[in-house]
Amino acid sequence: MKYSFKNDYTEACHPRILQALIETNETQQLGYGQDEYCQQATKLFQEKIKNENAGVYFVSGGTQANLLVISSLLKPFESVISADFGHIQTNETGAIEAVGHKINLIQTKDGKITPSDIQVVLDKHPNIPHQVRPKLVYISNTTEIGTHYSKTELEKLYQFCQSKNLYLFIDGARMSQAIAIPEAELSLEIIAKNSDVFYFGGTKNGALIGEAIIFNNEKLSEDFPFVIKQKGAMLAKGRLLGIQFLELLKDDLYLELGKHANRQTQKIKSAFEKKNVSFLTNSLSNQIFPILKNDHIKILQHEFDFYIWQQIDAEHSAIRLICSWATTDEVVGQLITNIENL
Amino acid sequence: MKYSFKNDYTEACHPRILQALIETNETQQLGYGQDEYCQQATKLFQEKIKNENAGVYFVSGGTQANLLVISSLLKPFESVISADFGHIQTNETGAIEAVGHKINLIQTKDGKITPSDIQVVLDKHPNIPHQVRPKLVYISNTTEIGTHYSKTELEKLYQFCQSKNLYLFIDGARMSQAIAIPEAELSLEIIAKNSDVFYFGGTKNGALIGEAIIFNNEKLSEDFPFVIKQKGAMLAKGRLLGIQFLELLKDDLYLELGKHANRQTQKIKSAFEKKNVSFLTNSLSNQIFPILKNDHIKILQHEFDFYIWQQIDAEHSAIRLICSWATTDEVVGQLITNIENL
Amino acid sequence: MKYSFKNDYTEACHPRILQALIETNETQQLGYGQDEYCQQATKLFQEKIKNENAGVYFVSGGTQANLLVISSLLKPFESVISADFGHIQTNETGAIEAVGHKINLIQTKDGKITPSDIQVVLDKHPNIPHQVRPKLVYISNTTEIGTHYSKTELEKLYQFCQSKNLYLFIDGARMSQAIAIPEAELSLEIIAKNSDVFYFGGTKNGALIGEAIIFNNEKLSEDFPFVIKQKGAMLAKGRLLGIQFLELLKDDLYLELGKHANRQTQKIKSAFEKKNVSFLTNSLSNQIFPILKNDHIKILQHEFDFYIWQQIDAEHSAIRLICSWATTDEVVGQLITNIENL
Amino acid sequence: MKYSFKNDYTEACHPRILQALIETNETQQLGYGQDEYCQQATKLFQEKIKNENAGVYFVSGGTQANLLVISSLLKPFESVISADFGHIQTNETGAIEAVGHKINLIQTKDGKITPSDIQVVLDKHPNIPHQVRPKLVYISNTTEIGTHYSKTELEKLYQFCQSKNLYLFIDGARMSQAIAIPEAELSLEIIAKNSDVFYFGGTKNGALIGEAIIFNNEKLSEDFPFVIKQKGAMLAKGRLLGIQFLELLKDDLYLELGKHANRQTQKIKSAFEKKNVSFLTNSLSNQIFPILKNDHIKILQHEFDFYIWQQIDAEHSAIRLICSWATTDEVVGQLITNIENL
Repeated sequence: MKYSFKNDYTEACHPRILQALIETNETQQLGYGQDEYCQQATKLFQEKIKNENAGVYFVSGGTQANLLVISSLLKPFESVISADFGHIQTNETGAIEAVGHKINLIQTKDGKITPSDIQVVLDKHPNIPHQVRPKLVYISNTTEIGTHYSKTELEKLYQFCQSKNLYLFIDGARMSQAIAIPEAELSLEIIAKNSDVFYFGGTKNGALIGEAIIFNNEKLSEDFPFVIKQKGAMLAKGRLLGIQFLELLKDDLYLELGKHANRQTQKIKSAFEKKNVSFLTNSLSNQIFPILKNDHIKILQHEFDFYIWQQIDAEHSAIRLICSWATTDEVVGQLITNIENL
Repeated sequence: MKYSFKNDYTEACHPRILQALIETNETQQLGYGQDEYCQQATKLFQEKIKNENAGVYFVSGGTQANLLVISSLLKPFESVISADFGHIQTNETGAIEAVGHKINLIQTKDGKITPSDIQVVLDKHPNIPHQVRPKLVYISNTTEIGTHYSKTELEKLYQFCQSKNLYLFIDGARMSQAIAIPEAELSLEIIAKNSDVFYFGGTKNGALIGEAIIFNNEKLSEDFPFVIKQKGAMLAKGRLLGIQFLELLKDDLYLELGKHANRQTQKIKSAFEKKNVSFLTNSLSNQIFPILKNDHIKILQHEFDFYIWQQIDAEHSAIRLICSWATTDEVVGQLITNIENL
Repeated sequence: MKYSFKNDYTEACHPRILQALIETNETQQLGYGQDEYCQQATKLFQEKIKNENAGVYFVSGGTQANLLVISSLLKPFESVISADFGHIQTNETGAIEAVGHKINLIQTKDGKITPSDIQVVLDKHPNIPHQVRPKLVYISNTTEIGTHYSKTELEKLYQFCQSKNLYLFIDGARMSQAIAIPEAELSLEIIAKNSDVFYFGGTKNGALIGEAIIFNNEKLSEDFPFVIKQKGAMLAKGRLLGIQFLELLKDDLYLELGKHANRQTQKIKSAFEKKNVSFLTNSLSNQIFPILKNDHIKILQHEFDFYIWQQIDAEHSAIRLICSWATTDEVVGQLITNIENL
Repeated sequence: MKYSFKNDYTEACHPRILQALIETNETQQLGYGQDEYCQQATKLFQEKIKNENAGVYFVSGGTQANLLVISSLLKPFESVISADFGHIQTNETGAIEAVGHKINLIQTKDGKITPSDIQVVLDKHPNIPHQVRPKLVYISNTTEIGTHYSKTELEKLYQFCQSKNLYLFIDGARMSQAIAIPEAELSLEIIAKNSDVFYFGGTKNGALIGEAIIFNNEKLSEDFPFVIKQKGAMLAKGRLLGIQFLELLKDDLYLELGKHANRQTQKIKSAFEKKNVSFLTNSLSNQIFPILKNDHIKILQHEFDFYIWQQIDAEHSAIRLICSWATTDEVVGQLITNIENL
């Protein structure tokens, strides 16, 4: 069977998480997130972001996290501002519209939006009450195409949002990988301080399932448990989520895993660069999009699985390669050898 | 008070409609659209489109008609394809998203979409079930910027939609004005035969309120009354709607009014053309968008009300001028004189 | 054709309203409720309830008013408390659930609810966040079965609601008829002061269409125009609504019409009482529900139309009789003669 | 710490499931339910119900399963018929109304509904289109209060539903426990053949999370993956669900666990019966509701945790006791000793 670079959720979970599940399996716990593991994980998050009042909630997946947060924050006639590559726009089967909200799109090259992009959207909505009211800015960090927002960029964005009375919500399906980029100068605390709410992804960084939703602006989360329950997102055995995030946070395992994923990917990137391959986006994270001759793609496909992302011209396409916490030096080495031989 | 060319719903209703309301005022009628006027108007529509089984329903306004039709035809994960100028996109406060559906936008210059535009949207939705399923094409005729779809264009569009298993729904807020364009070669029958459902606007063509929703594809309308009622769109005194459409259809009053509105507008257009003014769009209908020097706009504003539509450059803007069934020769003459004196 | 006592929306509109439509027909007005008639009517309502900041909005019908108010006030997980006879429960095709909210029902005999009824509902919702949060109390005055809440009853109810942090919303489809009951000791001001929001019905009291939604608690209505527009309830020619309410309020025409409807109905009631007929409910308003022998019902049906409301036993049924502003002395006399001859 | 009889989801998962997770942890698998474990589990379900075309889908929890199935089957104006104890009514925070549907309630003593109960609901909905259309019957087996539907009862119910063009949907959060009741004469095949769709619960029978939704009426499930994704219920690592159901079905582990839970509970029930204690409901499953003196409840609370379900009179209350796959003979013996000493 071919090794897959398709995604960062191809393996199950990190061994330490599995071990924690084994050790706690027989204890009796309260249901619905009232268990002691969820409580401990909540406390750890609050400590890391230095806000003991922060609202912390654990749910199963990213689309779920996005629709829960957005539907809980917006009034029926309020809208979300997103980049055109935003996951809520491209790959969530209209989940945001299904909870009633329009997405105002910003065309981007690198999947990132700026204050001036947002201002353009605001300027297009003067016709009260015949238009929606843009009220929440949705970004992903890292983005869906591997780029990232740095500390400085986040700070500017959040200051702008606050000045315009907009919420800033960060989709952190791959937040560990963003924090793991040294040039980004990020941390959980910096992300929390520069947003109203974000989620911190487990699924794409070594958990079986799970995203932690964190409201640094805690007054926004007062009624959030009702929303979680009503949308079918509250697990009876919430312990499954608490245990995993507890393990990911302890000793900063999340960061170690994020760094590993980035490092493996960047090694592959370097191999392409040596062959003068160009890329769709300038990614320092665990997703890269090299632009290859179609012939070369076919050769790589003999041994590896990956997505062909986009046709560039008659003879070239961009592919997507992703490494995860589980990608070994061995398989990366094999791929690099293949690249060198192209 | 200045005369307003802002809209075609600035006056109340055509005198013949008022007269019909007076004459029928004291008769007792069943409620909720079961009255004899609604039944007669339904029959007249069925005759005009030569389909005695067509579903015909009367509602109060255009946003209402749009959300009723779209929410009744689509499954929760299906989407609407629309031009970027589409009224559902620009000026209905997210009504379509509020009933759960994403709008897939097509960038246009003239507000019109073609089969190849639609194909591009379809091609961007391969990732089942992670993306919405485009299922309905929404167009307006005339469009929101005064252009129109001709008979030939409609036929091609509908054939394409049928070949792709897409519904075609025509917003006819200004449908009378489209039919009134000789070059368009349209009729109610042609419109019905080349769509699954359309609405025929009363509000912008001499009625007090009212849009008639007509399902030529009658099997789509089986349960439509439930939807009308549930969304709060079923009038207790449905007679108010039936009476008006009966009057508009009798002797083709609707067409006479549409022709009048177009004719008055086109006279103004000619006056601008004589001054070598250019236009945002090539409109043969009752909306025109001349591009004027800002100084000239200020002069016209002394005597007339209208919208400044769009800034073109530092010294020029496009304005919108609309005539209606009620716009008199006298006021058109006054405006033309002003134009000639610019 | 038989005279119909089926409803109070069987005729079109009061002659004074028709006259006002005629007189204003040709004036140009702004659209979407910005016209001068809507503004004047708003001011008149504010004066009558002695609150110059009250939010006043005009919409087409009762189901629409109910779903607009409820969807704008409640968070997604909040519910409505209603009597089992409540119109939102029985005859609105699930409009409230369609905008996302559960209705908590109270079983009643007379269609009215009390503070202790509400307390029972609250007591059944301890299981946070696994149950909805009851947040709004919906009542109708007069009720759907002809009974009414008096000033004292309203005051107690509203005090209770305030003490429990519940909104009180009054469906006033037949509010004029309630105010017209002397024993009720009501007025528009008293109703406004004892509720957060209510609507004042036009359709069932002489208007062509129209209900006026009035937020005495004005901070609840801040964003209401967005909701009106998004749900398709904002008329382009809002003047049609403004003109009618202006006329109904001037010289308290609404009250005169409500009194007339009640008086005609109560004359019929007296005729039944003289024949020792009993009633389903003790109504002082314009709806009565006499319980008759099925044979007698058939006799009355020869000359009159009305609803058979409910089977009582093998030989008896309750019928519903309604008079309106338009019910003449002559036809009431004819019915009474028929009753006397039973 | 006191032993808890509060629920059947107090422990994590059965050791065989944990072992399967360990063994499969490092294999690469496709995401979103395309993994081989989901495929194998699907096939096993299809074999057990003897329908190789059945639609089989795995999701995280019961509220989620209920809202997915119901929102995918009903048109916006259609409603659900449920017992008053139905989980969708009592403990899902209005999840069904939040996806737009009214619940028509049937008052019951034992949590079960019959054809004649349903007929009463249908008879109350003659007023088309002013009322919802009841279209789906929701039952739970075992019910929320421990009772069950037998094979014969299910057959009658489904025949009735089919004759009335109603869907039958069975909430099987505790379906294993129902099948484990010998007197019920049930099997997965019998349940499938007597319903349009049901879900088979994992969470309350030894899984970490997971409910399997099975459409025996496969044409109803054609588009179900879109709905799963749109509502945020599609796990990236769907393998987590597939692995668990594969293990539960292999060698009929589910049935063994269900029998164990029932057997432990019924031993406790016998102990109460010897003390002449009566019960709220006649349960043969793993939930019992003995009615005890409040003094006796306090004594039992010294060593055990459980819910006080309902006050019966000033001196008595019903408590709820639940055993699970994990409840040991030892702890059951301790409880019985305590009961004997009351």
